[in-house]
Amino acid sequence: MPRPFTTEDYTARLARATAEASAAGLAGLVIAPGPDLAYLCGYTPTAITERLTALVLTAGREPALVVPKLERPDAEKAAGTPALRLLDWTDGEDQYAAVTPLLDPAGRYGVSDNAWAMHLLGLQAALPGVGFTSLTETLPMLRAVKDVEELERLAAAGGAADAAYRGILEVEFAGRRETDVAADLGALLIQYGHSQVDFTVVGSGPNGADPHHEADERVIRPGDTVVLDFGGLKDGYGSDTTRTVHVSPDVPAEVQRVHDVVRLAQQTAFEAVRPGVGCQEIDRIARRVITEAGYGEYFIHRTGHGIGLTTHEPPYLVEGEERPLVPGMCFSIEPGIYLPGRFGVRIEDIVTVTATGGRRLNNTPHELAVVS
Amino acid sequence: MPRPFTTEDYTARLARATAEASAAGLAGLVIAPGPDLAYLCGYTPTAITERLTALVLTAGREPALVVPKLERPDAEKAAGTPALRLLDWTDGEDQYAAVTPLLDPAGRYGVSDNAWAMHLLGLQAALPGVGFTSLTETLPMLRAVKDVEELERLAAAGGAADAAYRGILEVEFAGRRETDVAADLGALLIQYGHSQVDFTVVGSGPNGADPHHEADERVIRPGDTVVLDFGGLKDGYGSDTTRTVHVSPDVPAEVQRVHDVVRLAQQTAFEAVRPGVGCQEIDRIARRVITEAGYGEYFIHRTGHGIGLTTHEPPYLVEGEERPLVPGMCFSIEPGIYLPGRFGVRIEDIVTVTATGGRRLNNTPHELAVVS
Repeated sequence: MPRPFTTEDYTARLARATAEASAAGLAGLVIAPGPDLAYLCGYTPTAITERLTALVLTAGREPALVVPKLERPDAEKAAGTPALRLLDWTDGEDQYAAVTPLLDPAGRYGVSDNAWAMHLLGLQAALPGVGFTSLTETLPMLRAVKDVEELERLAAAGGAADAAYRGILEVEFAGRRETDVAADLGALLIQYGHSQVDFTVVGSGPNGADPHHEADERVIRPGDTVVLDFGGLKDGYGSDTTRTVHVSPDVPAEVQRVHDVVRLAQQTAFEAVRPGVGCQEIDRIARRVITEAGYGEYFIHRTGHGIGLTTHEPPYLVEGEERPLVPGMCFSIEPGIYLPGRFGVRIEDIVTVTATGGRRLNNTPHELAVVS
Repeated sequence: MPRPFTTEDYTARLARATAEASAAGLAGLVIAPGPDLAYLCGYTPTAITERLTALVLTAGREPALVVPKLERPDAEKAAGTPALRLLDWTDGEDQYAAVTPLLDPAGRYGVSDNAWAMHLLGLQAALPGVGFTSLTETLPMLRAVKDVEELERLAAAGGAADAAYRGILEVEFAGRRETDVAADLGALLIQYGHSQVDFTVVGSGPNGADPHHEADERVIRPGDTVVLDFGGLKDGYGSDTTRTVHVSPDVPAEVQRVHDVVRLAQQTAFEAVRPGVGCQEIDRIARRVITEAGYGEYFIHRTGHGIGLTTHEPPYLVEGEERPLVPGMCFSIEPGIYLPGRFGVRIEDIVTVTATGGRRLNNTPHELAVVS
């Protein structure tokens, strides 16, 4: 078990977030339940609902967490709660009235991406002079640079996903449904310490050509190429890795060629990782390898996404994202080629930026593995 | 297995939603992934993310679903998709530009409560003349009246939760941790056909006085009163029931008295259910019983909430909710008394409104059960 985050950790994060908001020209932040709230004070309500929970950060003021009264006992238990002022409201009261006194009526605030539209509209109606902007717009990198404790958790999650991959190479593929192999993958992730399985993609044959295909009733056959993309949360931090396998040692020349191209794209992009390089550069480098091999039109998604308390967060490695890589950032590098109606290939590792380059948090072989 | 919802079902729901939006003075609706989207077209993306998925309904126009290109194959499989126009956008493009041509630039639109603030802000920035309002504000009852197929699913989910309750009465409580009993409850829900467990509250002794306590490491002792509140999804529809049990046949007089009061409040509120009664009336009736017994200050939450594709949705049985009950509505009636530091009691059934009254979808005994 990693060392639990302490009140001191959360105090430092709250102070940094408030300072970054000021530096971005904001009066403060309105943080909703989800990864932002978990990151800043360690509080995760049982459910995200129509009942308003909001953390308000304002320069020069004590952070304030507003919760429904009946959830107050849970909020009091969070490790970050001693670092802030806890306020509550009761069913039947105007829940927005509990937050409005905390906001500068003419200020501009960053708001959690995943805050409910209902709550944002409630605050906008109560305070028409306040401006709101999403954290993706103004402070996208708030959680992007991981500290040592977070890196340790992400590396452990990556190691568990790697163990799950080694395990899945031992199971039968031919004659079983995709959903059966997906269930095996989920069980392996849990066996290796995940508390939550977020996705277990098993894309066999033509299903592999749909990058977000999960798993269906298709029975896997000898000769199928199969994309395996799986991950979830371990000790609160995410894993996400993809390998492509082949059901039979007779690998068709085109499958091998496509796999070689994707592997080269992944490796080339990985080797380009170092502080200061723009996020979009990593995408361009992977894309160039695939385009030059003649498959550019079949690489139909961005090259990667950040990972941390969620399995999908900034930084995004996508055309247009010019912000630079910074040591401690963690993200996927996952180029793919998808040939409609035929098969798909994707290779994905989580990578963290070091002082001088990149370090993989997934370390299983990239070769096209043969399964039975 | 219940009959799957068909394209015709979704066509009818889309038409009704569009008509209700017009009747509410809206130009249309912008529907986000989650229960609203599942209800209106049967499409449930694998994850709700920063990538925009939106269903736009406008009077006189064909419904349009905008999805990320790489999720299009999944969207195409949804039963409601033939009833609408499917559009997509590609990574690196402005995702809001895919939706703005569908909206009247001076119109007012209802938006799903749980749409991401990031997406709402993106649409507001792209179309400053458009007004947005939450569905809770304008069309709260869009999914509140269940049809026959939905009622069948909710009744089956309730029956499965009842079977789980009967099962949990057979397990050992004394000497085990709350989390152990919670795990048993979760396993029972799955055993009786749930695909997803949303909550398994085991609140023993003083923990029972926190209505939203889940389960912790506390070891249950003889003489404890224990609140059991559990539910999840079966065939896509929710269950949610609460019973309070006692660990030992020697029930203290005050525990019995508090339980009797809660039971009377639940029964009295249930008997008041009939079409035309205001939602807040049910809350007032339950509250009056508890207040008259001297425990009013210890009933610290509303009396109930709707249930359907989620375990928490309109109608809310709360002071201020004046809308009337309508046949087909389904909601919890769950009064409780919480004595801080001592114990709590709650009794909860899902109830549906019939033409002449109410019908319970949970049917296990209300008596304070003794467990070992």
